[in-house]
Amino acid sequence: MSEGERLTELAKRRGFYFPSAGAYGGASGFWTYGPQGAALKSNIEDAWRDRFVVREGHQEISAPDVMPEPVFEASGHLEGFDDMIIECPGCGATHRADHLVEDETDIEEAESLPNEEIMDIIADHGIECPSCGESLSGVSVDNFNLMFETNIGPGSSSPGYLRPETAQGIFVEFPQLSEYARNQLPFGVAQIGKAYRNEISPRKSLVRVREFTQAELEHFVDPEDDEPPLEAVEDVTLPLYSGESQQAEDGGVERLTVGEAVEDGVIASDWVAYYLGVARDWYERIGVDMDRFRFRQHLPGELAHYASDCWDAETEIDGDWIEVTGFAYRGDYDLRKHADHSGEDFTVFKQYDEPVTVERPTVDPDMSYLGPEFGGDAQAVADALEALAERDPDAFEGDEVTVEVDGDSYTVPVEETNFSVEEVTENGEHVRPHVVEPSFGVGRLIYTVLAHAYTEDEVDGEERTYLDLPPEQAPTTVGVFPLMDKDGMAEYAGDIADALREAGHSVTYDDSGAIGRRYRRQDEVGTPYCVTVDYESLEEDTVTLRERDSTEQTRVSIDGLAETLDRLVDGETTFDAL
Amino acid sequence: MSEGERLTELAKRRGFYFPSAGAYGGASGFWTYGPQGAALKSNIEDAWRDRFVVREGHQEISAPDVMPEPVFEASGHLEGFDDMIIECPGCGATHRADHLVEDETDIEEAESLPNEEIMDIIADHGIECPSCGESLSGVSVDNFNLMFETNIGPGSSSPGYLRPETAQGIFVEFPQLSEYARNQLPFGVAQIGKAYRNEISPRKSLVRVREFTQAELEHFVDPEDDEPPLEAVEDVTLPLYSGESQQAEDGGVERLTVGEAVEDGVIASDWVAYYLGVARDWYERIGVDMDRFRFRQHLPGELAHYASDCWDAETEIDGDWIEVTGFAYRGDYDLRKHADHSGEDFTVFKQYDEPVTVERPTVDPDMSYLGPEFGGDAQAVADALEALAERDPDAFEGDEVTVEVDGDSYTVPVEETNFSVEEVTENGEHVRPHVVEPSFGVGRLIYTVLAHAYTEDEVDGEERTYLDLPPEQAPTTVGVFPLMDKDGMAEYAGDIADALREAGHSVTYDDSGAIGRRYRRQDEVGTPYCVTVDYESLEEDTVTLRERDSTEQTRVSIDGLAETLDRLVDGETTFDAL
Repeated sequence: MSEGERLTELAKRRGFYFPSAGAYGGASGFWTYGPQGAALKSNIEDAWRDRFVVREGHQEISAPDVMPEPVFEASGHLEGFDDMIIECPGCGATHRADHLVEDETDIEEAESLPNEEIMDIIADHGIECPSCGESLSGVSVDNFNLMFETNIGPGSSSPGYLRPETAQGIFVEFPQLSEYARNQLPFGVAQIGKAYRNEISPRKSLVRVREFTQAELEHFVDPEDDEPPLEAVEDVTLPLYSGESQQAEDGGVERLTVGEAVEDGVIASDWVAYYLGVARDWYERIGVDMDRFRFRQHLPGELAHYASDCWDAETEIDGDWIEVTGFAYRGDYDLRKHADHSGEDFTVFKQYDEPVTVERPTVDPDMSYLGPEFGGDAQAVADALEALAERDPDAFEGDEVTVEVDGDSYTVPVEETNFSVEEVTENGEHVRPHVVEPSFGVGRLIYTVLAHAYTEDEVDGEERTYLDLPPEQAPTTVGVFPLMDKDGMAEYAGDIADALREAGHSVTYDDSGAIGRRYRRQDEVGTPYCVTVDYESLEEDTVTLRERDSTEQTRVSIDGLAETLDRLVDGETTFDAL
Repeated sequence: MSEGERLTELAKRRGFYFPSAGAYGGASGFWTYGPQGAALKSNIEDAWRDRFVVREGHQEISAPDVMPEPVFEASGHLEGFDDMIIECPGCGATHRADHLVEDETDIEEAESLPNEEIMDIIADHGIECPSCGESLSGVSVDNFNLMFETNIGPGSSSPGYLRPETAQGIFVEFPQLSEYARNQLPFGVAQIGKAYRNEISPRKSLVRVREFTQAELEHFVDPEDDEPPLEAVEDVTLPLYSGESQQAEDGGVERLTVGEAVEDGVIASDWVAYYLGVARDWYERIGVDMDRFRFRQHLPGELAHYASDCWDAETEIDGDWIEVTGFAYRGDYDLRKHADHSGEDFTVFKQYDEPVTVERPTVDPDMSYLGPEFGGDAQAVADALEALAERDPDAFEGDEVTVEVDGDSYTVPVEETNFSVEEVTENGEHVRPHVVEPSFGVGRLIYTVLAHAYTEDEVDGEERTYLDLPPEQAPTTVGVFPLMDKDGMAEYAGDIADALREAGHSVTYDDSGAIGRRYRRQDEVGTPYCVTVDYESLEEDTVTLRERDSTEQTRVSIDGLAETLDRLVDGETTFDAL
């Protein structure tokens, strides 16, 4: 059984996640998080919020999932958010054409190839329909838009789409959000929420799904003045798989500190480098195995049109690398697009410390000269003179000035241009912020954390499966058991469970079955600690505290039990030191 | 300005909520929660989770928003989740016909009237299109399904819908969820998530929207054996507006304890009564003004087909009563529907303490007698005999037995029925749980809490607006200000802000503008406490602590400041006692 299959089995059996609507045969690409999974998801989201929102001083919003069409006209999703689809002429099944090519040939990143080339490769390799075996040679490869479409209100006059990324809910509200930040750059706005992509072929459990949760941060910065606090992360070591390494014959992952990577120019953007450093430690905190982790740079052909530098955080499962986060320097692409399409102001007015006097060269060409001289080209020549004055005022220093219009040169006496330089006082300028975006896929992180936590060992000659989740992330912090349901042990244990809950711990109370089976149940969902109440407890107010990974047990007083657990969870003490 | 208008203005200006996609003219019925609103929403959800999930020992899941068609065929939403729509023949605008009637006449709850009657009322009252004034007499009133429709995967062969309630994501997974509960009734499953209704005419800000957040609990109980722990809430006083009172001429809200309401039969279901008691105190905790609150029973004509008793929690804003929660006893309607449509098992096997021997009456009619005697009706008669044997075995005690088939009576000698009673040993039985459902609208709660918290007073001769939110719910617990940005005060205040954040408080740091303006800003978003660092702070390690409601200030040591705030927030001490 592969790692992924083993995990999917455990996930369903123990309540982490399972395919939705199974009673009706399910709907491919939709998963339900059961009680354990929902708790783990919530813990990972809280850890993200703590690190990327609260500690960075950013703000969080919550925008709708359904958005009207103009948003996606502007963002480019309506036009270009496509995958390559091929429909089998035999059975009618639809497939992602680039995935077929990747599965059946040595070609990687087939997504970046044009449709015609994919058709050629399918023909050349004689690729067949995976569902029925029919040849797909010559079958057309088309674009399929991945957005789920619906209609807002009665009729079909107002199309709406389920957002394919949470980011647009932030970009489109920039004018309002900027006011909340009192128009002071830099500021960051985060959102944790659902996103939807109508995948042609959902696969690999939580990896390629149709509905998923993103945690995205859009950090708006002044490209000229703002710098990230690199010193806070400069010593963090990053496993970097650069574009150069990927293209080199013997290239591999290189371990550089953030400081080195910036100095060597391996990471082009300081902002991206900063967030890679912050994220590296955060992945470790939530339980990603750092031996199965890397940052991979996008290759030039792979880069989105808006991004000047982009790195993915990737985790390894079953030998495959899965993108769990994208870190992109998006420039001003998004805000510019929305400004152009909406006609609204998507800038921030940056006030100068003191008013600045600038020289502004202008022309006011004498049309009564240009007209007779250049006929129908006169206005174009006038426009060219104006542009030249702004660009290169020195050109007007001689007696004549020459401009080009549509390949032809036109020479004009400077005195006919009425060239002059005015002094203008400016109080500030409108700045269109650039955007730095770390974008996390929560479901893929859950999948990774569970896969990397899955451990098998042997205890007392019996095979055991447990999840070595970090205590902070585990769905349950502590299991509380009465040894037997008699002589007041159950009541005593119930009171302990209530008190621990009251103190903020996530508690599972279990009184059914042999104590060993109860430990195993908690092991399988990653509960780091269990407390057992026995006869001695009733007399001495002590309980057995058992650690998941070592299966060791020790006796502790119930006085201060909640605090002891707090300190264990926070790493302020160890089980051995108790 | 009405309360609602005043609130909407404040909500947008201060970052609670505002209409989405305003740069493109917006999309009616969609709202974005800004930084303050998202924090308040999260706090209210946490308070709900604490009370209705953790403290009740229930479990929480997270299911997809997009669900396949068979789910809604079974639930009845595809067939019957309609509103009445009328399209103006003049301008083409669409309206909710029942709302037009309610707005223009004295009729309430017009939703419960048939379409034809609504058409008659529109004609009788000469109701016109609110958009253009055209007469709507004689215009047809149609049903409009409120679900947002989309397609799953390529093509249109797999319709999907945005769930109109989170509940279906729980019901459809009952077989799996029951396993997680080890098939032991009662158990409860909760979900906080988005729901979507394609309202014809969204209105009243957050009250009638197209995308909203629900917090729903589905409590699965054994209708024969399970009882709620009524004693825990029996002394809670409920403001009850019963069906009887609503129909009486001088009826009004009656204040009864949960115990009295159950004993007097005002609330029919003990389970519903239990949750009204739990919820009453919870509403108060989150800041609902209990003088503007009531529980209203559904009138017989208003009851959903599945519910045997239903009460709404309603809050008053601008003289209107808004439903913020529905409490329904849904019986086995939902699980039975899904069992029927899917053919899967939606029951729990209840093992008896000891095997039980039961008598099972059966018949095995002699068809060689029935056939000649009753011809084509023979099989129907045989079926009727079998049903009668189960229902009323005593009917077989005489010589003859009579059954009815389609209104005709058939008399058969008992000896030809081969009636007998077998003894059967049973180990248990399959029980289809009943469902108790408290269903909360989170957006409407936010709207209520803000409206009820909105307060104006006068401080030092100036008008002041503040939100008297409970400290637990406030987006920010404490504002931290340096009196001036010099002589180290900003650094000192920054350190305090960090330390308070570290201790788990929600902190806003603000160093801009006069100190009075900073207090006002925090007042307007409901921040209960502010800390100001001044010259004395630098020398004596004390700060000014200011209380929002009284605007009083006191000097406290920075030692233990986080704990002092904890105790204030938890109500363990008061500001006056400091």
